[in-house]
Amino acid sequence: MEQLEGRQSVLAALHAYQRRFEVILVSHGAHREAIEDVLSVAAERGIAIKRVDRKEIDALAHGSSHGGLLAIVSAKPRLKAVDLPRILSQVAGPPLLLLLEGIDDARNLGFTLRTAEAMGAAAVLVKKHLWDFDPVEVARPASGAYERLPLVQIDEVSPLEDLQRGGLKIFGCVAAAKRSIYDVDLTGPNILAIGGEKRGLSGAVRSICDRLVTIPTVGGSTSLSLSHAAAIILAEAARQRQG
Amino acid sequence: MEQLEGRQSVLAALHAYQRRFEVILVSHGAHREAIEDVLSVAAERGIAIKRVDRKEIDALAHGSSHGGLLAIVSAKPRLKAVDLPRILSQVAGPPLLLLLEGIDDARNLGFTLRTAEAMGAAAVLVKKHLWDFDPVEVARPASGAYERLPLVQIDEVSPLEDLQRGGLKIFGCVAAAKRSIYDVDLTGPNILAIGGEKRGLSGAVRSICDRLVTIPTVGGSTSLSLSHAAAIILAEAARQRQG
Repeated sequence: MEQLEGRQSVLAALHAYQRRFEVILVSHGAHREAIEDVLSVAAERGIAIKRVDRKEIDALAHGSSHGGLLAIVSAKPRLKAVDLPRILSQVAGPPLLLLLEGIDDARNLGFTLRTAEAMGAAAVLVKKHLWDFDPVEVARPASGAYERLPLVQIDEVSPLEDLQRGGLKIFGCVAAAKRSIYDVDLTGPNILAIGGEKRGLSGAVRSICDRLVTIPTVGGSTSLSLSHAAAIILAEAARQRQG
Repeated sequence: MEQLEGRQSVLAALHAYQRRFEVILVSHGAHREAIEDVLSVAAERGIAIKRVDRKEIDALAHGSSHGGLLAIVSAKPRLKAVDLPRILSQVAGPPLLLLLEGIDDARNLGFTLRTAEAMGAAAVLVKKHLWDFDPVEVARPASGAYERLPLVQIDEVSPLEDLQRGGLKIFGCVAAAKRSIYDVDLTGPNILAIGGEKRGLSGAVRSICDRLVTIPTVGGSTSLSLSHAAAIILAEAARQRQG
């Protein structure tokens, strides 16, 4: 069992049809307008609603922005490389994927999922160890994107090579590449690969990248955080695609 | 008293000359190469070094990435609007400032400072309540930028109007503006203003903005997090300035 906190996450999960809902807890004080759509979908689908004191939700919730709404749900099904062809077949236009090789915590992963969705990514690919994060901590900052955006577990590079054979190009984001993200064409079918802050991209991924690119920074500053680097290259890909 | 954790923060603070160092704790197991430059600057300046067990640093540290180095220092002096002319006088080229009106937590503020510095911002302006954050929690993810980048407390809009009279333009980043950040010229002397996730920009700031701009997102997604929105608009300003 997992829990979803707040209207954004609960509504996104209801619409994504990926989880089984055991019960939705609604606090006595919750604003009617804020939860109306949740209650209406729950009623249609026959999902149990339980009215509780706000302190009961406060005690269960990890965060404080639940707005009096918390759902007890089954875990989100895990996607693997074998699911990628189906995911890609549903994308209109050249697909944009994000590969995260290392990320320091669940919240940064959540924020990154949210931005990846907003910038038009079709899926986020992560290494196996990222599955160890507490899903509630990922889902909260993702503000619904965790429910909607496919998160695919990749354990080795062979699925990435399969994608390359299918026409996708891998752009590896590293600190000292000669070309900047502004000097390459990111409008095609792409995988944007970002490494962890300590070790950068792994040798295995780096060796299959079609091109290494860098985000230009001002001299004297330190490197960007992984999640901000992801936001900036995703936004550049979206800018080029919209232009 | 505050503490600085890890080589990046300690070295940045030593170079910024803004804090008084009481003592630098170095664990017995710390890698010589990793702390050599810190020890050398400390020796020049007559700062006390104390060798301790790693568990003593672990017990004091908020995070786990201190690498066996922790400094006990005076608080960083707070900058106010009155310090802005001096800060701006040291900027080569058209100054770029970031105004944050709301941000949910210390770590996101730290990540944002790091990106602001890397994208060439001359200072970050924050509302008074942001000073309540634990400075250690801000400094860690900022990876040295907290020491180097001026963080200026702004309590009302009049200092912003003073900056406007001095030639700076305020671009307010909001969800539903007609113009995108890619359709405006961000190469001049600018203040990029970002509001909190819940309330957006305040009416007071919004009313004095020279232009409202938006970061385009794909339909159906939720809004961006404040720190990712800041990263994306800062990167766009940097891209335009470098181009």
